[in-house]
Amino acid sequence: MRLIVQKYGGTSVGSPERIRNVARKILETQQQGCRVVAVISAMAGVTDNLIKLARETAPQPEERELDVLLATGEQAAIALIAMAINSLGGRAISLTGAEAGILTDRAHTRAKIANITPRQIHALLAEDYIVIVAGFQGQNAEGETTTLGRGGSDLTAIALAGALNADACQIFTDVDGVFTCDPRVVSDARKIDEVSYDELLEMAGSGSKVMQSRAVEFAKKFGVEFEVRSSLKNAPGTVAKEETANMEDVVIRGISVERNQAKVMVDDVRDEPGIAGRIFSTIARGNISVDMIVQSVSEHGTTDVSFTMHENDLPAAIELLAPLVKEVQAAGLITKAGVAKLSVVGIGMRSHSGVAARLFDCLGRGGINIQLISTSEIKIAVVIDGGDVDRAAQLTHQEFGLAKFVPASSL
Amino acid sequence: MRLIVQKYGGTSVGSPERIRNVARKILETQQQGCRVVAVISAMAGVTDNLIKLARETAPQPEERELDVLLATGEQAAIALIAMAINSLGGRAISLTGAEAGILTDRAHTRAKIANITPRQIHALLAEDYIVIVAGFQGQNAEGETTTLGRGGSDLTAIALAGALNADACQIFTDVDGVFTCDPRVVSDARKIDEVSYDELLEMAGSGSKVMQSRAVEFAKKFGVEFEVRSSLKNAPGTVAKEETANMEDVVIRGISVERNQAKVMVDDVRDEPGIAGRIFSTIARGNISVDMIVQSVSEHGTTDVSFTMHENDLPAAIELLAPLVKEVQAAGLITKAGVAKLSVVGIGMRSHSGVAARLFDCLGRGGINIQLISTSEIKIAVVIDGGDVDRAAQLTHQEFGLAKFVPASSL
Repeated sequence: MRLIVQKYGGTSVGSPERIRNVARKILETQQQGCRVVAVISAMAGVTDNLIKLARETAPQPEERELDVLLATGEQAAIALIAMAINSLGGRAISLTGAEAGILTDRAHTRAKIANITPRQIHALLAEDYIVIVAGFQGQNAEGETTTLGRGGSDLTAIALAGALNADACQIFTDVDGVFTCDPRVVSDARKIDEVSYDELLEMAGSGSKVMQSRAVEFAKKFGVEFEVRSSLKNAPGTVAKEETANMEDVVIRGISVERNQAKVMVDDVRDEPGIAGRIFSTIARGNISVDMIVQSVSEHGTTDVSFTMHENDLPAAIELLAPLVKEVQAAGLITKAGVAKLSVVGIGMRSHSGVAARLFDCLGRGGINIQLISTSEIKIAVVIDGGDVDRAAQLTHQEFGLAKFVPASSL
Repeated sequence: MRLIVQKYGGTSVGSPERIRNVARKILETQQQGCRVVAVISAMAGVTDNLIKLARETAPQPEERELDVLLATGEQAAIALIAMAINSLGGRAISLTGAEAGILTDRAHTRAKIANITPRQIHALLAEDYIVIVAGFQGQNAEGETTTLGRGGSDLTAIALAGALNADACQIFTDVDGVFTCDPRVVSDARKIDEVSYDELLEMAGSGSKVMQSRAVEFAKKFGVEFEVRSSLKNAPGTVAKEETANMEDVVIRGISVERNQAKVMVDDVRDEPGIAGRIFSTIARGNISVDMIVQSVSEHGTTDVSFTMHENDLPAAIELLAPLVKEVQAAGLITKAGVAKLSVVGIGMRSHSGVAARLFDCLGRGGINIQLISTSEIKIAVVIDGGDVDRAAQLTHQEFGLAKFVPASSL
């Protein structure tokens, strides 16, 4: 019998009615002749409310107790889902992360999965139970409750699918799958049927927040195929898997945009070892995430170091960097908020030259100025003015032929 | 070093501010040179909300999953209390019922404590931690979460105090202790310093809902002394303990009243074996709790069977009993709502004759008609008209000299 691991997010279980809907979907899967393990997130809003309550109670709640608190969100959700399935005539049993055998390291609030011993899940499946597992949580070697950090339920599902050697892993969300571009930006964006882990990682890091990068990295490491699909429709979604030869026939898989970015340039700084390290360790002290980093070629012993971040972090970054700029005798700090990043992603570009040229040419023809460029093996990212990003995405989407397939008969 | 087990109820931890207050009280206890284990209930209202959510999700939520759900209330509360203590500079750690070693039977939602192995509590106390334990919950031999039923946190505290051989067990509530009568009814009611388990049991069963009977029964069985005291004031409360010789100097410990009762009489029923059994098993099918049961002396082969219940249950009881009354050929069913029960409780009455006569005489002088009488070794209960009960309590309170001690100088 096929074994399927499903994951339902917080919005899918946001009310008693939605919980019953999820229960029905799980039962239907079983009735199609599958054994089912379902991983459940906390009801929408619950985790945020618990964090708020913690901060009202203690200004800096300690992480061990925060985990004990936050784990209650998923624990409540699994009980409700199991009740709903049983009241619909099914046979379900709920397990916390610890009961499901998810062992993590000791890093409370951001624990890494160390090991999974799904003995109890196997035993319950053998007795024809549907097994409902709390996402986002586990226990450490001391038996203390730990949580896996934001988006941890995706990780739980993928890790369980791997440990159980499941035949399929389905991540149910409120979108239909991964798209060639955000359909709100590009009206003829197309759902992608298959995507490689690397492509999904590059797209997740570029604003397509379908999945947390950690979950995708875990899937890649252990070769766990999974499908991102809608919990509202009964239609196939996007399958993420190891890349296959025919995937490379498609040069570009998709285009991601990330708005509300800021760029920072440390101008004319001495090209000496250690300078870049000092810049970025200063930024890191402010807990600011830096995205693209570009250093131009050295001229006359000085260079420019540029990078991007969310524009909300810019004031803090300026405050942190101003003293350093003086100290290292750079010419100055040039900053600009309101920029955006556009990324073109596809494993096919490795073997097809000229993708970069085609992108720059396309943007140039559209009169869109490129302010920064950064590339990886399967991605080209450009920083452009925020006001240009929708048009840039539309032009690029067309340029690389990503639009919906239109049958000839309808032309 | 003295070891104290404290218990804080849902109202005491109903908001972040109250949680910090409880944290301060626990820290003060430690600073007085004690090791502290604190048992915590769910924040006020949380358990009721979870039950509501369960019923909205599944019409008859199954009990195993209801326990998984309800246990989250106390789990959230212990984490918040531990955080609050730690943020005030203390060292606290939270434990679920399972982690605290509370093993129960398999009866979900009303589990009985089977055994306590407080190995982890001992280890943490030895490291100078304050240990915060989730009330109301445990785990069964299969490792499943169980709950102990309403008021179960009192039971957790008393059972832990017994298992840890604690020097004191303090049950913090929103009242100052156990009173000779409800101060809202009798203005000069006095806080009782000491009460025997049996007296407290009779008073709890008579409407003085300071403690759940189960917790008191457990304390009596294992000889665990405990104190009921206010979480708002810093004053001694009422100590419940095994009866001592000098306790018997006081003939009457207190007076309880219970309103909104109904009485039912099955009139002129054949005095045959099995008739009473049929009456009360019929009532039990409706899940109705019967309180006093009185059967009068048989005359001419027939007798009357009378009993009381909450008046809200009366319509259901009448519906259940009507067919039976015909079937057993009783003369009829006489019912009356709006009556009340007044109980006079005291271990001293065992050795002092005439308490009943004095009570009846006192009520008679007040023109209060007695409709039913039931007695135990340490209690006399009478059913009277609901409109008479306040005055009856005041008269009785005075008759037995229970009023506040008034120094002679102030007379």
